[in-house]
Amino acid sequence: MERHFETDLEELKQQLLTMGAIAEKAVHQSVYSLLEGDEGKAKQVLEEEETINELQIQIDEAVLRILALYQLMASDLRFVLAVSRINADLERIGDQAVNIAESALRLAHYPRVKPYVDLPRISELAEGMVRDSLNALVQADEKLAKDVLVRDDLVDKLRDQIFRELLTYMMGNASMVFPAFDLILVAKDLERIADHATNIAEDVIYMLAGQDVRHHAQDRR
Amino acid sequence: MERHFETDLEELKQQLLTMGAIAEKAVHQSVYSLLEGDEGKAKQVLEEEETINELQIQIDEAVLRILALYQLMASDLRFVLAVSRINADLERIGDQAVNIAESALRLAHYPRVKPYVDLPRISELAEGMVRDSLNALVQADEKLAKDVLVRDDLVDKLRDQIFRELLTYMMGNASMVFPAFDLILVAKDLERIADHATNIAEDVIYMLAGQDVRHHAQDRR
Repeated sequence: MERHFETDLEELKQQLLTMGAIAEKAVHQSVYSLLEGDEGKAKQVLEEEETINELQIQIDEAVLRILALYQLMASDLRFVLAVSRINADLERIGDQAVNIAESALRLAHYPRVKPYVDLPRISELAEGMVRDSLNALVQADEKLAKDVLVRDDLVDKLRDQIFRELLTYMMGNASMVFPAFDLILVAKDLERIADHATNIAEDVIYMLAGQDVRHHAQDRR
Repeated sequence: MERHFETDLEELKQQLLTMGAIAEKAVHQSVYSLLEGDEGKAKQVLEEEETINELQIQIDEAVLRILALYQLMASDLRFVLAVSRINADLERIGDQAVNIAESALRLAHYPRVKPYVDLPRISELAEGMVRDSLNALVQADEKLAKDVLVRDDLVDKLRDQIFRELLTYMMGNASMVFPAFDLILVAKDLERIADHATNIAEDVIYMLAGQDVRHHAQDRR
């Protein structure tokens, strides 16, 4: 057990980034399985859920090990606690990608509702938020984290626009109510992914703001 | 600073239970503001969001303080980490109650879509899951936590039933598409609340299952 906590913290950070990259890829794949009507790609997303779940457990164990082995400074404690919570958010982003893939599989049996113009846009926004919330963590970049929060409003606006369009469409096309509703669910899933990215960004801001507590803990040593 | 960590852990547990009770009450109030068309009650839910947010910060700070002050055994570490994550889930349950209250305020301007039979049922289920997931934590009751997971399937079934009914209704009542859709959003919010309760229950199970790590840490001392 001759390891330094900095090595362990660095490894933890790398694990979280791997998890983040996999979750983000799952979101991208799920949306494109829908846009391209590619059932194989959708099924791949369902299969990869297991990888994300296993990574979550590994990260939880690493967090526990670090806290059990080292008496950390408050700033490192804040980082480790943030990782623990962000880990849960990333796993749930993976769950949402699974939901989207399931919608894609259902939608593959229907004619295309309408041109999917806004879906790639909201998806790109949400994926960018996930990516940048993790970049903000790694680079300790409060400005970037705050920028993620701002983008959440754009996602909500785009979601409302998608809702309105699809509901109006449903009013004139009763037979397409069910597939149109699946698209609404996908927009809702993407909104939720953006919410998780927002949570991650808030954790980063909280982590970086903890100067007072950090000084307090340093005084104690 | 002459306090024992057991006192601090007990206080942390009490804070989390207070937060849980307030979040659960917010859910109940938001749903009943909708069922009873009571705009005052809905506005109360919006006002109480601040209390939940403040409690979340207090609990986060308490978690940090405990980890900074004491070198905990792995079993206590697992508990504190669980509290940190559950705290985030409870705050988000509060957010969902706010969403429901906002739907209630919008719906107050429409004639009633249809008798709200399933909404009180799914709400009762979701509230019970929140309550019991916290009971499982406090009583270290794995069986109860697993029972919460089982109930999540009931919520999903009830949600699907509500979706189907409202979509069918929308097909025959084009003018009521928008208020009917608000009810769908409320069912979705309640599903999400049940998801958070499921997350809490999973954290409890994970916390209680950690025998190996606990022994490992005890050997180290």
